[in-house]
Amino acid sequence: MTFVLGFDVGGTGARAAIARPGGPALARRSVAATARMGARGVDEEAVGGLLAGLARDLLAAAGADRAAAVAVGSTGTALLGEGLLERLPVVLGEAAGRGPILLSSDVLTSFAGALGLAGGAVIAAGTGAVAVGTDLRGTWRRADGWGHLLGDTGGGAWIGRRALAAAVRAEDGRADGSPVLLTALRERFGGARDLVADLYTRADRAGLLASFVPAVSDAARAGDAAAVRILGEAGTELAATALAALPPTAPGTVSATGNLFQAGPPLTDSFTLALAGAPRPVAYASPLGDSVDGALALASALLHDTLPPGTTDHVATVVRPPTPLPR
Amino acid sequence: MTFVLGFDVGGTGARAAIARPGGPALARRSVAATARMGARGVDEEAVGGLLAGLARDLLAAAGADRAAAVAVGSTGTALLGEGLLERLPVVLGEAAGRGPILLSSDVLTSFAGALGLAGGAVIAAGTGAVAVGTDLRGTWRRADGWGHLLGDTGGGAWIGRRALAAAVRAEDGRADGSPVLLTALRERFGGARDLVADLYTRADRAGLLASFVPAVSDAARAGDAAAVRILGEAGTELAATALAALPPTAPGTVSATGNLFQAGPPLTDSFTLALAGAPRPVAYASPLGDSVDGALALASALLHDTLPPGTTDHVATVVRPPTPLPR
Repeated sequence: MTFVLGFDVGGTGARAAIARPGGPALARRSVAATARMGARGVDEEAVGGLLAGLARDLLAAAGADRAAAVAVGSTGTALLGEGLLERLPVVLGEAAGRGPILLSSDVLTSFAGALGLAGGAVIAAGTGAVAVGTDLRGTWRRADGWGHLLGDTGGGAWIGRRALAAAVRAEDGRADGSPVLLTALRERFGGARDLVADLYTRADRAGLLASFVPAVSDAARAGDAAAVRILGEAGTELAATALAALPPTAPGTVSATGNLFQAGPPLTDSFTLALAGAPRPVAYASPLGDSVDGALALASALLHDTLPPGTTDHVATVVRPPTPLPR
Repeated sequence: MTFVLGFDVGGTGARAAIARPGGPALARRSVAATARMGARGVDEEAVGGLLAGLARDLLAAAGADRAAAVAVGSTGTALLGEGLLERLPVVLGEAAGRGPILLSSDVLTSFAGALGLAGGAVIAAGTGAVAVGTDLRGTWRRADGWGHLLGDTGGGAWIGRRALAAAVRAEDGRADGSPVLLTALRERFGGARDLVADLYTRADRAGLLASFVPAVSDAARAGDAAAVRILGEAGTELAATALAALPPTAPGTVSATGNLFQAGPPLTDSFTLALAGAPRPVAYASPLGDSVDGALALASALLHDTLPPGTTDHVATVVRPPTPLPR
């Protein structure tokens, strides 16, 4: 029997599943860990070991001895994780049986999970925000994903940063500050100076900023104008990013994934409104599955040579594990 | 003869001067170095050694054997530099002659440099932005200075971040991006992905963001709408910060210091306009001197016990070097 493996490696851990090619997940596993961006980029050693362990677990769960193809979507890979291209074929190849491995940004696995391998664009929003789209005729477009200082506009860190800025403006007595968000800041961090000491000395600043999103959602539910405005602007920005990733030649289909879309009506309403106001007709499609499902779909397409045109030119790399030396 | 020493320790180096109490600087020295914020806060050891060297140089230049009082303004001290309070009395005390030492955020030395020890508020803007004000009757107010992720609104890093965000939006093909700023980004960093790789792996992210300000000024001079808008909003924000720091009981005097006020007419015009539109009458006062002059004024006031009421309760600490053990 033939099996494929799919992985999603994000900022808060890794998730994986095993399936028959083209079929639904037979078993799923996840592990909490972080693929941190540091001075040396993604920690390739940690990610490699993590994925090999998940692969062995899933193969055992399915009673399989190898996977015919593997797909891995990973946060930050597209921009920073070049070393992963060298290490993964070795460690994953050994654990999973030396089939070909597709490596991509998690934006592609999110895309494939949400739309299947169909044309359109998908916006993925969690701590960050990034969109990808294709017309299935070789054109791929990517938008945002520029990180918490340059973009990821409308994402969790962006929302948290603006909400905390509104809180410290209230601390300064400015009329455009939010006393409600300042109260939330104090409940969460102690005080504005405690937050400063905590935030600027840690590596994962985006994660800390994004961790404030639930407090922003609560404040919006309680009617805080600043929180409602920030979430509303986030929804508008996320729609703009999705539309920027939609090639003019693609079907007008947009989907959205990621836990940020649970942040509340101000965000989702303004997202829907902005799609409705797009210069071309755009239909929203509920996501079919998550990014692990997307990785399974990509692994199946890799095995059957049915990847959408341009996939390996623009948004993914396929590596083949080295053949072991004869003994 | 009696002498005082004044220091300004910033992100790009340290500057110092020596004077007779209440008099102008007799000699000035500066040294390029950085007081970086890192996982352990300001590097106290480096800052201490730097200041002791400057003190010895200035005392020698003035033919003095000791300073009767010293004042040190330092970036980040108020929020992060607690260790500096322990180390400076020892190293500076040894170099400068064991007079009392006033330690403060550089916002206080900027204030004293710009307004002298008079009532009003001063906004200091470079990489960051922070304001302080007093009514000379014991009330002090501080506004912003929350760092590049939470505030420093209208400062150099804030301007650079927004300008670079407008550049990468142009890279994504978004209509609200700035192609002019994207060209400037490419000239400066190579490309958007090079910038990402450079920015997120360095400690001094605020400094890198702020280093883009001259390009924003150039773009504004060339008529780029995004650059003009960003600089204009910065001026408005800096005025709001200055007004937030002005106690209601203080004279309506505002001054501004820091090299960011060289960024161009969109910033300075909107700053002036926002002051003119303040709810209370506010007059702009050109700065009398820089933050080293302010440190000298504070050292003189410390010596003569004429510090403004509340100075050591709210915005500064006075430490006395330990008496050496008898031999």
